[in-house]
Parts: sequence; structure tokens; C-alpha cells
Amino acid sequence: MNVESKTHLMTPGPVAVHPEILRTLAMPMVHHLSKDFQKTLENVLSKLQELFGTKETVFIHMSTGSGAMESAVVNTLSPGDEVLVVVSGKFGERWAEICESYNLKTERWNIPWGEFARSEELEKKLKLKNYKAVLTQACESSTGVLHPIEEFGKLIRGSETILMVDGISSVGAVKLPMDEWEIDVLVTGSQKALMLPAGLSMISLSKKAQEKAKRAKLSKYYWNLKFEEAHLKKGRTHFSSSVSLIRGLDTALNLVLKSGLDAHLVNVAKKSTATIKAGEIFGLKAFAKRPSQSLTAFVLPDEVPGEEVLKSLEKKNIFLAGGQEKMLGKLIRIGHMGFIENDDVIYVLKRLFSLLLEKSPQSFVGKNLDLAIAAAEKCLKS
Amino acid sequence: MNVESKTHLMTPGPVAVHPEILRTLAMPMVHHLSKDFQKTLENVLSKLQELFGTKETVFIHMSTGSGAMESAVVNTLSPGDEVLVVVSGKFGERWAEICESYNLKTERWNIPWGEFARSEELEKKLKLKNYKAVLTQACESSTGVLHPIEEFGKLIRGSETILMVDGISSVGAVKLPMDEWEIDVLVTGSQKALMLPAGLSMISLSKKAQEKAKRAKLSKYYWNLKFEEAHLKKGRTHFSSSVSLIRGLDTALNLVLKSGLDAHLVNVAKKSTATIKAGEIFGLKAFAKRPSQSLTAFVLPDEVPGEEVLKSLEKKNIFLAGGQEKMLGKLIRIGHMGFIENDDVIYVLKRLFSLLLEKSPQSFVGKNLDLAIAAAEKCLKS
Repeated sequence: MNVESKTHLMTPGPVAVHPEILRTLAMPMVHHLSKDFQKTLENVLSKLQELFGTKETVFIHMSTGSGAMESAVVNTLSPGDEVLVVVSGKFGERWAEICESYNLKTERWNIPWGEFARSEELEKKLKLKNYKAVLTQACESSTGVLHPIEEFGKLIRGSETILMVDGISSVGAVKLPMDEWEIDVLVTGSQKALMLPAGLSMISLSKKAQEKAKRAKLSKYYWNLKFEEAHLKKGRTHFSSSVSLIRGLDTALNLVLKSGLDAHLVNVAKKSTATIKAGEIFGLKAFAKRPSQSLTAFVLPDEVPGEEVLKSLEKKNIFLAGGQEKMLGKLIRIGHMGFIENDDVIYVLKRLFSLLLEKSPQSFVGKNLDLAIAAAEKCLKS
Repeated sequence: MNVESKTHLMTPGPVAVHPEILRTLAMPMVHHLSKDFQKTLENVLSKLQELFGTKETVFIHMSTGSGAMESAVVNTLSPGDEVLVVVSGKFGERWAEICESYNLKTERWNIPWGEFARSEELEKKLKLKNYKAVLTQACESSTGVLHPIEEFGKLIRGSETILMVDGISSVGAVKLPMDEWEIDVLVTGSQKALMLPAGLSMISLSKKAQEKAKRAKLSKYYWNLKFEEAHLKKGRTHFSSSVSLIRGLDTALNLVLKSGLDAHLVNVAKKSTATIKAGEIFGLKAFAKRPSQSLTAFVLPDEVPGEEVLKSLEKKNIFLAGGQEKMLGKLIRIGHMGFIENDDVIYVLKRLFSLLLEKSPQSFVGKNLDLAIAAAEKCLKS
């Protein structure tokens, strides 16, 4: 297909679904207790461990990623527990709202949007209080920031506190090895780096979190991982499996892990670096002080009407995301997850930059679109 | 396709997915905030009201039906509330387990498997205690029983109690008009009469239940219908929509409502009547005292090895369900929901009866397979 006639969905989720996965979704239904499906589920569970970098079980919920975030909380904590939540954007807010919904003593560590949570600050906070858990995003996709999870893991190691990481827009896109970095609870969703539609979420608990889970007293049923564990031992999920999406996940994991997870991450990184490089030359600054390779958020010059630019792109079948909440109209967010080929990256950057020049020529005086694109091409080919 | 070369999935869920729906599932992804998808969501929400027979909003959860059951409980009740749960099989147990997980005072109204809950008994119970809610299945799919929901609605009308109905294996297969029958909470799932894969559930609350919801104090986040309502007003779901499944639901609702819901229910009823009639002639008795037209559970003669019969059918690509828990090996359950054509019903009944004769000829002495099939054909053509 000609790149110009394609629809380009390059938001930070949902993402373009790989055609092989689309074909899987259209396969006739089988029963979730059939041998065929049990084999698929077994394969998926084993590949999920590779994706998460863990020896522990990775559970699948039939829900979006937010469901797995709630599952993380209700499976490990008890009423009145004191928790520290990194709030550096919309999804940090979500962690806090979940904790507050369950009457946990929730301390919001508010970080200016675009900044990342500094480990030296966390170190101070951990000395002052004995939190039951620290909850954070790996990548806060409303700002494109990547928090230093490896350093957090080192700080929390050996204490009673557990580290809970929302990896929804990072598992499969950035390095986040659960066991090696001592992440206690890691969650993700299907519609980001896994190139699937929304509808599945995944969660895994470290040995330390599993111990907490034994004594956790928050009410739960659908998210109860004890039930889930008992059923997985019999080769099935507790509730009716989303057969189509789980078969799709099998195909997705084959694609992601085909040449090894590291090689896949290098590919995502190239798209990210190419985008940031091209942006720099063209005069666009990344919003995130520590950008995630899963998406790039560019700050728009004040004169540029952000929402208008997005609407014009949509008319050309290019879908990017804007800023959320307080950053509405001020950011352009470009996802690097999902089924995106190098030609797509180049094509979309060209259209975006041309449109910015057209809408606000005064903001980009002296900037060279061709040079910017050439730099992106070089990155992608490297 | 020749009926003999097809795979026949005729369990009470998951069900065979209509080919038009499979094609929808394979459509390229669009963003859940795009105009295209918002239009789809709007259509779906309006058709769901027709399906439920309600003027109230029908909400969609990205979960299996059990998620919507939990949502029903946590959105309307408060800690310590006393509830009455009809337990007439595996799914009645599920209601009870959910209530108990949330520390509700849960009275189990245990009914022998195969029997239905009698409204005169309910009347007595309601006089003795002031329950906050009565929870029941419409169809208990582990036994094939259909409870008299219309009568329950009349008994509960005007009181403080709310009637919560699990319609997972009945909405779209049997008559269950929510407003007319004064059902206060009705839930269903995607993988039964809606001919979709599992992964979506739906829930609607009567005005009376909505009033309860305002004062309900159980902890919740993912299931919080207040958030959901606020988002639906802006044309979106609270969490990332399962775009593929919701587009599939749009196609499914078009198919189900094409000639009107009543005509669709008549079609399901014909399959059910044909199956029961053929069974009677062949010497198989329906297990349910009041059978649901969504599935038929046949009691097997003691000598028949139920699980072996199912396995032999699977080798011929026919998938039926057996008994669950205490009825394991003693029942054959045949679903009438999903994409099933008349030829499929006849073909599957023929293969099932032939196999029963083969495995246990002494149990069916004097029974006429051809007469049984002829009776089924007559029903289907009527």
C-alpha cells in the first residue's frame, strides 16, 4: 500500500494494529476450554514472562490497563495503608484516584508536568515515612516523561515498601526488566506496544508483593489474583477468556519477541530518536526532561494553534494526539508504539512540519524541513 | 460451506461468531476519540436500550459479564447491606461470592439444581425480611433453568428492595424487557446471544437503582458508573474503549435487531423447541423444570458416559457443554445462542443422538432417531 493513501494512527494509544493480528482477530471462535485454546493460553503466559522479564506468573485480566492498575492496588494493600504516588501527569492522577477510592492514605508527590521524579527526592521521602507502596508510571504518557525506575528499584530494595509500576505505555517499548530492576508489581495493557486493540491487561507480582497479597484486605472479586492463580493452574482464566484478543496477543508476542525483546526495543528507540532529532532541527523541543522512547511530546510555540493542526492532519488521515488537561492545545504527542514502519515515520513528520510551517510560518523562520527529515532518515537507517 | 465440514460451536458460550462480525473485528484500528468511533458508540448505546427494553442508559464495561455483576453490586449497595441471592447453580454461586467478597450480609436461597425459584416462596421471604436487594439469574446456564423474572418484578415493585438480574445468557435470547418488568439492574455479556467474543459487558440501572447508587458506599473505581456517565455525556467511555469489540457489537446489534427483537427471540425459541421436542422423542429429558430458550440441558441416562460423548463429538468438530460441578458427566448442554443456522441444529442433533446410540444402545431401546429429527425439522420450519 502506498504510504500516502494509508491511514496513519500514531497516537500513544490506541495504535495501528499489525495486519497479522487483524487476521487473527477474524478467526472463527473456539471454546475457551478447548485444547486448542488452552495451548494458546499456555504459550501466551510463557511469552508474557519474557516480555516482563520475570520468572513470576503474568496474569491476564479482561479489562483495559486501568483495570490492572486497580488490581495492583486491591491485591496488595489494606484499608488505611499509607502510599506515595508519583503524580506527574494524567496517569499519575489515576493511580492516586484509585488509591483514594479504596480509602488508602494517599500522599501525592506532585511533579511539574514534563519533569521526572528524581531518585534523590524519593530517597528523602523514604527516610521520612514508611510507605506500604510507591506507585508510579514508568512512562507518563500525558507528558512523554520516563521516570528512573531502575534507580527507584534500588532505593526500595530490602525495605517493607513495594514498588508498583504502571508500564501501560512502556512494557514492550522501553527497557523495564521486572526481576532485574526489582519492580514489585508491573502492569500493562494491550493497546500500546503490543499492537492490539484495547481489552486486555496484564499484571505480575514479585515474591515480595505476593507475600503482601496474602495479607491484603481490600475487597475484590473480579481482580482477585488468588482465584486467577487457581484457575491458571488448570489451564484457564477465572472468567471467560477474551478468546479473540488472547489469540491476537499470541500473534503480537510472536512479532515483538521474534528477534528478541532487545532488538525490538532498539527499533522503537530508532523511531523515537529520529523524531526528536528531526524536531530539534526543525525547532521543536521535546516537552519531557527525560523522554520515553515510546512517545514524543513536542511543545508548540505559543502562536501555533495546536488543536487546529491536529484537525488538519486528521483530514489527511494522520492521527496524532494533543496535550491533555492543562496542556491542551500546547503539545503534539507522537506515538512510536504499534505497527509503524520507517516510511510512516518520515511521511508523518513531513506532513506535520509542512502543516506547522503553513499555519505559523513566523514560528519556524530559518528552520529547514528537508534537513530535519534527512536527519530522521539517517537515524532510522542506522 | 457444507454443514458437515464446519466446526460447530454450540455451547452456552462462547458461541459461534457471525462472519459479518468477524470481518468487523479485522478492520484497521481507529482512535477511540475519533468522530468515526464516537458515531459508532452513539449508535451502539441507542441500540442497547432497545435490546434491554429500557429508556435508561446502558453502560459498557471492558470486561466479561462477571465484571458487570460486580459493577451491579458495588454501584448500588453499602457495607453490611442484607441481600437475598437465588442460588440455583454455578452462576447463582457467583452472585453470592461477589456479595460476600464485599462483606454484604448474604442470604443464599438454595434451590435444587434444575428447579426454578418460585415466586410464592419469594413472596414469603420478602415478608420476613427487608432485603436491600434480591439477586438472581434470569437463566442459570449451568442448569438451563429460567426463573420467573416478570413475577419477581411484580413482587418487588413499590418496595425499597431492588431486583438485580444477571441476564448474561438471556438478554437477546429470551424476553426480558427491563422497564416493563421492573428489573432494577440488568447485566449481560458479549459472548452469548450477541454472537461476539468475550470481552464486553453491559449494565443498566432503573431510576430506583440510580437513587440507591447515589448513596452506595462500597469501594470502586473501574466499575464506577458515575465516572462512566460523565464520560458518556462527552461521547466516550471512561477508559480506553475496546474499539474492535464495540464496532463488532454495533454489527451484532444490527443483526439481532434487524427484523425487531421479538422476531429474533422467536428464531431462538424455535431452535430451543426443536431441540427439546427431538430429545423427548429420542428419550432425553430436559433437566430444567422451566427451561430457558437460550440453552437446553439434557439429563443423560446413568449408563451414558457424558464426558466421553463430548470428547467423541469434539473429534467430529462439534462442541457442546457438559454438566458443571455436581452435574459433571450427567448433563449435555446445547446452546441456542450465537450464529447457528437451522441446518446446524439438525446436523448436531443427528450426530449427538447417533453417538448416544453407539455408546449406550441399551439406554435408547425403541427410540426412533429419524422421528426425533423429523420433529425438530418441523419445529424449525414452522
